[in-house]
Amino acid sequence: VWLLGARGSVATTTVAGHAAVVAGFAPTTGLVTALPPFDGAPLPALGGLVFGGSDVTDVSLPKRAEGLCEAGVLPAALPDLVAAALEEADGEIRPGIPEQSGEPPLEAIRRLQADLTGFVRRRALDGLVVINCATTEPALSPGPEHEQLATLEAVLARGSAVLPPSSLAAYAALDLGFPFVDFTPSTGAHLPALAQLADRAGVPYAGRDGKTGETLVKSALAAMFADRNLAVHSWSGINLLGGGDGAALAEPARAASKLRTKAQVLEGILGTPVEHHVEIHNVADLGEWKTAWDRVSFGGFLGVRMRLEFTWEGADSALAAPLVLDLARLAWAARQAGESGPLAPLGFFFKDPLGGGGYRLDEQWERLVRWVGELPSG
Amino acid sequence: VWLLGARGSVATTTVAGHAAVVAGFAPTTGLVTALPPFDGAPLPALGGLVFGGSDVTDVSLPKRAEGLCEAGVLPAALPDLVAAALEEADGEIRPGIPEQSGEPPLEAIRRLQADLTGFVRRRALDGLVVINCATTEPALSPGPEHEQLATLEAVLARGSAVLPPSSLAAYAALDLGFPFVDFTPSTGAHLPALAQLADRAGVPYAGRDGKTGETLVKSALAAMFADRNLAVHSWSGINLLGGGDGAALAEPARAASKLRTKAQVLEGILGTPVEHHVEIHNVADLGEWKTAWDRVSFGGFLGVRMRLEFTWEGADSALAAPLVLDLARLAWAARQAGESGPLAPLGFFFKDPLGGGGYRLDEQWERLVRWVGELPSG
Amino acid sequence: VWLLGARGSVATTTVAGHAAVVAGFAPTTGLVTALPPFDGAPLPALGGLVFGGSDVTDVSLPKRAEGLCEAGVLPAALPDLVAAALEEADGEIRPGIPEQSGEPPLEAIRRLQADLTGFVRRRALDGLVVINCATTEPALSPGPEHEQLATLEAVLARGSAVLPPSSLAAYAALDLGFPFVDFTPSTGAHLPALAQLADRAGVPYAGRDGKTGETLVKSALAAMFADRNLAVHSWSGINLLGGGDGAALAEPARAASKLRTKAQVLEGILGTPVEHHVEIHNVADLGEWKTAWDRVSFGGFLGVRMRLEFTWEGADSALAAPLVLDLARLAWAARQAGESGPLAPLGFFFKDPLGGGGYRLDEQWERLVRWVGELPSG
Amino acid sequence: VWLLGARGSVATTTVAGHAAVVAGFAPTTGLVTALPPFDGAPLPALGGLVFGGSDVTDVSLPKRAEGLCEAGVLPAALPDLVAAALEEADGEIRPGIPEQSGEPPLEAIRRLQADLTGFVRRRALDGLVVINCATTEPALSPGPEHEQLATLEAVLARGSAVLPPSSLAAYAALDLGFPFVDFTPSTGAHLPALAQLADRAGVPYAGRDGKTGETLVKSALAAMFADRNLAVHSWSGINLLGGGDGAALAEPARAASKLRTKAQVLEGILGTPVEHHVEIHNVADLGEWKTAWDRVSFGGFLGVRMRLEFTWEGADSALAAPLVLDLARLAWAARQAGESGPLAPLGFFFKDPLGGGGYRLDEQWERLVRWVGELPSG
Repeated sequence: VWLLGARGSVATTTVAGHAAVVAGFAPTTGLVTALPPFDGAPLPALGGLVFGGSDVTDVSLPKRAEGLCEAGVLPAALPDLVAAALEEADGEIRPGIPEQSGEPPLEAIRRLQADLTGFVRRRALDGLVVINCATTEPALSPGPEHEQLATLEAVLARGSAVLPPSSLAAYAALDLGFPFVDFTPSTGAHLPALAQLADRAGVPYAGRDGKTGETLVKSALAAMFADRNLAVHSWSGINLLGGGDGAALAEPARAASKLRTKAQVLEGILGTPVEHHVEIHNVADLGEWKTAWDRVSFGGFLGVRMRLEFTWEGADSALAAPLVLDLARLAWAARQAGESGPLAPLGFFFKDPLGGGGYRLDEQWERLVRWVGELPSG
Repeated sequence: VWLLGARGSVATTTVAGHAAVVAGFAPTTGLVTALPPFDGAPLPALGGLVFGGSDVTDVSLPKRAEGLCEAGVLPAALPDLVAAALEEADGEIRPGIPEQSGEPPLEAIRRLQADLTGFVRRRALDGLVVINCATTEPALSPGPEHEQLATLEAVLARGSAVLPPSSLAAYAALDLGFPFVDFTPSTGAHLPALAQLADRAGVPYAGRDGKTGETLVKSALAAMFADRNLAVHSWSGINLLGGGDGAALAEPARAASKLRTKAQVLEGILGTPVEHHVEIHNVADLGEWKTAWDRVSFGGFLGVRMRLEFTWEGADSALAAPLVLDLARLAWAARQAGESGPLAPLGFFFKDPLGGGGYRLDEQWERLVRWVGELPSG
Repeated sequence: VWLLGARGSVATTTVAGHAAVVAGFAPTTGLVTALPPFDGAPLPALGGLVFGGSDVTDVSLPKRAEGLCEAGVLPAALPDLVAAALEEADGEIRPGIPEQSGEPPLEAIRRLQADLTGFVRRRALDGLVVINCATTEPALSPGPEHEQLATLEAVLARGSAVLPPSSLAAYAALDLGFPFVDFTPSTGAHLPALAQLADRAGVPYAGRDGKTGETLVKSALAAMFADRNLAVHSWSGINLLGGGDGAALAEPARAASKLRTKAQVLEGILGTPVEHHVEIHNVADLGEWKTAWDRVSFGGFLGVRMRLEFTWEGADSALAAPLVLDLARLAWAARQAGESGPLAPLGFFFKDPLGGGGYRLDEQWERLVRWVGELPSG
Repeated sequence: VWLLGARGSVATTTVAGHAAVVAGFAPTTGLVTALPPFDGAPLPALGGLVFGGSDVTDVSLPKRAEGLCEAGVLPAALPDLVAAALEEADGEIRPGIPEQSGEPPLEAIRRLQADLTGFVRRRALDGLVVINCATTEPALSPGPEHEQLATLEAVLARGSAVLPPSSLAAYAALDLGFPFVDFTPSTGAHLPALAQLADRAGVPYAGRDGKTGETLVKSALAAMFADRNLAVHSWSGINLLGGGDGAALAEPARAASKLRTKAQVLEGILGTPVEHHVEIHNVADLGEWKTAWDRVSFGGFLGVRMRLEFTWEGADSALAAPLVLDLARLAWAARQAGESGPLAPLGFFFKDPLGGGGYRLDEQWERLVRWVGELPSG
């Protein structure tokens, strides 16, 4: 597994938690693929996963793990218990592609591809899944150069910086035949030209934007309102985030990416226009934690007004990390099964599911379980 | 439709709301059977329903409707608009069976049966569905006389008061071939001897305890926790109820019936033991409204503790009334399709679904839609 | 009482509610000056108040009152009961001063002054209090012309539009010797030059920004944290507003005025820097209602992190209107007692209390009661 | 300071936290007497306090401190840093008086008095304050023997078990001239006969039931409703408690003590009857933490219904421990100042303030500060 943003909170928790679960120090709580419907499915063994990645910062994984202990995300004793795994993964982290670096795009792609193939060769891996856990990028203004693969490749060859880092990485991965998963709302593989690349290479990809908190609850509750024919009038919410995530999303351009994926879920499920507000706030004091409060105003029989409010409070990376492990296993299984293009059955994990399939959590779950059940066994 | 508790808030809202929707004064919000999956299903037309019922009190329906306006459950203009419908239904209300009345049970049954057949004949109806919306009874201590129909009938013939009013009514209805639906957690048809009666008569029944608030939300959210493999450690909640419902449930024996049906939902969905508390409180000040607050403490990856809280606030009878209309239509359709015994596909509507099928709201919804889709078309 | 924004929700509720309370149709709930500590104080009788005002719109008060009934702010029966009072006040409403009207400022001032003196003469009043309940204006950029009264008057005489409508009105009122009260966060009398005018005229004024919801709760709770030496780390909140107020505050420039007065309360009470966020959102669906949610993260002994959350939901104009009546009575009493300049003892009513005195609700209350107790009796 | 319940969570946090603050490992957060108004007051220095106590269990303080670390109440590094202080206090803990032990009451009193005087002599102390932090006892049925000191002493001399352990301890302390403080709702010194004893001995005492969470918030908010003349219609709440406290209060007889002190606060402040519900629930999963949810329904101008909800979540012993230190300092200062009987100025700390003075937090604060300011300086 190659993690973009390999020194971030999510990646650190993924590596530390993977080692802890494999060694039996922790139960499989939070891992969807550890549930009974996935027993016997042709997924790679959890213990067989090996981690590398890239990042633009150079704080070491063991140091990051200590910070996560202080924040209450990792158990105090964990970093010592999994020190070897953290050191090992830390040794496999290479410099990432910064935003607006000036590096010619093809060079950045070749450099990352060399890192990926070097990792595979050095560790004698059967394959690789590239997962984007880096900071959310500002939304990309799509241009004609993003429409056709041939055009895009010509423009890149001229050295034009028309792709953000996440898309350069998606290009690098898909071009080598490695599945690409976008756990963020960044552009990644979500461009027509890159979809063509995935088709050409016969590789699957998945995304976007892991569904770990407010939107998860929303996608469960909205179906309840829909099936009871209750009229949702307004749904207003606020997300308080600390840590690097909160700071990054305090920049309106980055927040816009996230707010867009959050907003579409509701109308996608309810099927009617809803007055809908989502806010993201940086509250440094919250550290690695996030809190969301939502207020739903709905009408019942004869128009009576009623309300539902909820507060969700969790550690962002503890919610995300097990899903990263699930996605690595599932994307690899899809690759083995010969699937290519957007993996709609993985919509259960995302706010903005590529490949369609709707936003209802129950239907996404059912589809995921059915798809896994039909994977050819080896 | 014959309503037990025909002068209660739920029944009044049912009659007034039915008239309003049929006349086009109100949209079909809250009516599940008005949703697209039910288009074209062989359900009786909403406009064809006619209401009668029984109650132990004698406040008239128009007067009750005015009280519901003051409480904000019915729109202020509604009682005048549907005055004729309220008067008409009020004219079809007969004295109910009081708890501990001393009336010999067979007499009570015969009296109710005469009311039912009189109503059918007088109004030239195709049939009848009996729906219990009366005050929750204390839980029944089951005895050997409730096991076999023959024994039960012998005991009743001797005049022993071994059945609560809801079960006397269930007997009366099933014996005449009329479906019986229990919207409360009272005993109703939920006795082995009465299941035998339903079999003998070839009649369907459904219940128990309409799922309209806290438990509805719970059954949507618990599936989310289960499918994400999140470990629910404790789920604590309190229900604040006003009105007659709150006062009745302030009696521990009645509350026990309700708390039992509420409690089983959670473990039924999560499949693991959960520290679980539900409280019901009478807050007269809330009038016809109810508020529930729940706090869920759950563990995620590596055991990190997180929480979800929600508050649900609604008008009890506005939540219940459209479901009563749905159940009348669906129970009658089941009767027409020749079904008998407990109607498991109607589990979507109940906290304690008779006939099995689990507690997950998504699976209940899917089963309901599939069942309706397979009903023989007339 | 002359109301700026006389056709708004607050003013309509003030006029209708005043009539209802005086006629005995409603209790004095919400009126601070009806509490025991104000018994016997030399305040003008509630029944002696007469209403006029100005507004830029022309929807009549009776029509506005009907809208407030539909929104659940006024009891359904009220508009009919107080129809005469609404008609009477409606007849005393004159065109307001629009923002950026192009009207020369001195003309606007003279026009309003003619309205005020006409109202006093026509109704044979002992005096007048002008209260601003109009839509919040964008914050004013203070310039040198606002520093000295002489400079300001010279600039106005040249026809420069250097004052917003609220300050033109403050000028008009103070210049005539009428107390001015700003119930909004607009500039009003809050300029050095206008303070000089109040001194010159020997007239009191009060403001700014009525404290009716989230900030009221905040000012009660922050003192609790301070007195228990608990360390508030962050205090984040969101205000959901409907109605015209919500729409106006959706404009960032207007919201900025309000957010500034909201923000200072916390540090003013806690005395330490706090990570503090307040949001205002327009949710049209809420109509005349507003909901605020706040989350306080605080540290206790040995640094343990704890939290407090609250939700406040109320009808904005029902919260504000009785305070408008209180302020009219108190400002007039101050005038009679010969006070001039900012009325610090009225800080209890405001988010941004002019004249100092701190932000603690308990100290504001105590000061108000003491001040009223010391007013010369007649 | 002699702590009853010296091995409980509150006492352990008190001893560990005292050592941490004195050594400079932790700030004085949570200590009321560390606030500016107490600067220069003639209170004993924090560093001069020495701890002993009694308990019926024998888990050592260092072991209890480790458990509190795991529960997140004490910082992970603390027990090592303050190991010496914990060991020292642990060496001064003697067997407590169990409920229903059969030990003759005078023997229990003499035994405790020997422990107290031994502690004072061994550690060469200037004096002693006895503070009850033990598990809440069931409420006592007051009898004639509790009315007069002479009667009580005669009954005790006959060996009748008419006093619960907290009152035996209060007797022991007061009789020796040591102030007694009841941080629980147990009976303690709250009996007419023991008030006479305090008078005879010229010793002050204080209590009852430390105000650390829901009731603290309630006493701050209720004053806000009162001063704004808002009509509180109902106030319903639930307290979820884990740990030993939760388990003890799951016994209805013990909960009754606590619920009674909680209930009176509201009417004491509002001055009108309020529909009021408080629940206490044992949720073992919460461990050392407690959560309270309250819903206030209130009426504003013209009877409009509005609501306030809050959730408070904290670590019980972190909230209580600094107040125990405050009370030790303040009670000793009162003793030095020659006060005797119930210390009404300490009402700020208690749900059921002995000595009167009302329930408003703001008035209690003001009275405390004034009283401290008037203490004779040494």
